[in-house]
Amino acid sequence: MKPYAFGVDMGGTTIKLGFFRKDGALIEKWEIPTRTENHGANLLTDIALAVLSKLAEKGIKTSDVEGIGMGVPGAVYNDGFVKPCANLNQWGGFDVATELSTLCKMPVKVVNDADAAALGEMKFGGGRGHKNVVFVTLGTGVGGGIIVDGKLVTGVHGAGGEIGHMKVKSGEVSMCGCGKKGCLEQYASATGIVRNTKLYLEQSGIESTLRQFDTLTCKNIFDCAKEGDIVAVNQVDEMTHMLGKALSNISCVVDPEVFVIGGGVSRAGDIIIENVKKYFLLYAFPATEDVDITLAKLGNDAGIYGCFTVVSD
Amino acid sequence: MKPYAFGVDMGGTTIKLGFFRKDGALIEKWEIPTRTENHGANLLTDIALAVLSKLAEKGIKTSDVEGIGMGVPGAVYNDGFVKPCANLNQWGGFDVATELSTLCKMPVKVVNDADAAALGEMKFGGGRGHKNVVFVTLGTGVGGGIIVDGKLVTGVHGAGGEIGHMKVKSGEVSMCGCGKKGCLEQYASATGIVRNTKLYLEQSGIESTLRQFDTLTCKNIFDCAKEGDIVAVNQVDEMTHMLGKALSNISCVVDPEVFVIGGGVSRAGDIIIENVKKYFLLYAFPATEDVDITLAKLGNDAGIYGCFTVVSD
Repeated sequence: MKPYAFGVDMGGTTIKLGFFRKDGALIEKWEIPTRTENHGANLLTDIALAVLSKLAEKGIKTSDVEGIGMGVPGAVYNDGFVKPCANLNQWGGFDVATELSTLCKMPVKVVNDADAAALGEMKFGGGRGHKNVVFVTLGTGVGGGIIVDGKLVTGVHGAGGEIGHMKVKSGEVSMCGCGKKGCLEQYASATGIVRNTKLYLEQSGIESTLRQFDTLTCKNIFDCAKEGDIVAVNQVDEMTHMLGKALSNISCVVDPEVFVIGGGVSRAGDIIIENVKKYFLLYAFPATEDVDITLAKLGNDAGIYGCFTVVSD
Repeated sequence: MKPYAFGVDMGGTTIKLGFFRKDGALIEKWEIPTRTENHGANLLTDIALAVLSKLAEKGIKTSDVEGIGMGVPGAVYNDGFVKPCANLNQWGGFDVATELSTLCKMPVKVVNDADAAALGEMKFGGGRGHKNVVFVTLGTGVGGGIIVDGKLVTGVHGAGGEIGHMKVKSGEVSMCGCGKKGCLEQYASATGIVRNTKLYLEQSGIESTLRQFDTLTCKNIFDCAKEGDIVAVNQVDEMTHMLGKALSNISCVVDPEVFVIGGGVSRAGDIIIENVKKYFLLYAFPATEDVDITLAKLGNDAGIYGCFTVVSD
C-alpha cells in the first residue's frame, strides 16, 4: 500500500475528512459544509478541492496516496453507483466513485455511511480484534452494519443491516417513516423515545421532572432516568427492551461476537448497555448468550476511519 | 477436482449417502441405519464401510475420489470438531473429520446438516442461480441456513441460521425447547402447529373437521385448511403470519435474493408460500420487498447434495 489515504464521510450537514497514514494513524481531520443546493451539484468538486489542497499544503504527491474511501447516506451499488440520497436533497443517481476519481486522479471506493462506521468500529473502535461484528447506530433513526468474517453484508438491495426496520412490537398504531408499523426505529431512535415519552406524558397525569422541559430531548430523558424519575426510567426500559429483543433476533441470524452500540443516543452511556444486556438475555437463544454488547469508541470519527479501511484493505 | 465425491447426511434414524460425479450428477444414493447405541460408537466405521464397499463394488480407486462431505445434526467447529449431538445419543465431542478421514484415507469436511441442506438447495435446488439465499427448514423444529455471497454464515457459536429461535410473539405462556418463550419454532414447526391447534380445539366449542382425528397431524391441518375448515384456515394463517414476520426481520439483517422453504411441513405446498408472502409484505422493509419466496426442490436429498458441494467447491 502507498503511504497515505483519505477517508471522507458525507453527512447531511457536514462532510468529515480524514487524512491517514497507511498504518491507520490519523494525521489530520477537518470538516467542510455539505452544500446540498442544486441537488448537491457542488459536492464532489468541494471534496476534490479539499483533498487536493491538503496534498498541496503538505507537499505530498498524488502518486503517494492509495486513494479515497467515501461514505454516503444512502444505498450504494457495485462499489460506486449511489441511489439518490434523501438527506442530500436527492443528490446521487450516478457513479460517484468514477466521477470523484476523475476529479482527484486517484482510486475512489464508495460505501454506505452506516457500513463505513461499522468497519471503522471493527478495525479501530469497540469491535477491535473481532471479525464478526454488528454495529448499531442510534440517532435520528436506527441503522446498522453487519460484518461477517471481516466483510460487510450489504444485501442484494443494499438493505443489509437495516435493522431499524425489524419488527419488534405488535399493535403499534403510528406509522414508521418506512410506511410499516412496529419498527425498532419507532422505539430506539432519539426521535422515537422522545415521541413515545411525550405521548405518555400527555396521556397520563403522573408527576415527572420531564414536564419541566419546553422542548424535550433524548438527553433529558436519559438524564432524568439516571436521577430516578419513574417516567424516564420506564421509557428507557421500554426503549432498551425493544433493542435487546432485536439484537437477540439478529444473533439467531448471524450469531456475531460483539454488538457495538453507537450514534448520538449511545452517549447516554452504560445505562443503555446494562438494560440492553438484561433484555438480550431474556430473549436470546442460549448458544448465543455469550456475546459482548459494548459502546462504540470512535464517536463521530467512526465514519472516516471506516472509509479509510475501505480503501486501505 | 478428482472424478468422484461422496455426500453423507447423518440423521437421527438413517444416514443418507450419495455418490456423485464431479459435475454434481448423482450416480447412486442409499441409506444405512443410524446406530446410536453406545453413544454412536459404530457410526463412523459404518459410514467408512459403506463408502469403501461402494468403491470396491464399482472398482474405483480412492485416489479418484475428491473426498467426503458430511452433515451432522449439531454444531460444528473448525470444520471438523462436532459438539455432542442431542439426536445422536450424545455422539460427538471429538474431531469427526480427522477420524473419518483416517478410516477412509481421503479428505473429509464436516458441516451442520441444516447448513448442508441450504448449500444443496442453493446449488442444485430452489435457490439455483443465487448466491444470497436463506434456507428455512420446517420440520419437528425450525432450522435455517444463511448463505451470503455463496458462503455459509455459521456464526461464532455455531448458531448462525438458528432462526427457529427468533422471537415473533409476545405474551406466550408455553416454553420453547430452548428455554425461552415466543420462538418461531413454537408456531411454525410441525410440533408447534399441532400443539396450538389442539389447544384451540380444547378451549373453544367451534365445529371443525379436525375433531375427527384421533392423532392430529400437521398434514391433517393443512389438508383441512385446503378444504376450507375455518379452524384449520386460521391455524395456517397464524403459522404463516409468524413465519412471514420472521422472514421480514431476516431481510433487515442480510437482505437475501431468495428464501427457500423446505422440511416436512413444506410438503403442504403453495398454501404456505402464498400465505407467507402476504405476511412478509405486511412487515417487510420496502427496499427488501422484491425477494423470491419459494419451495425447496430437493426434499430429503438436499443434505447429500449440500455435503457434496462442501467437498467439491
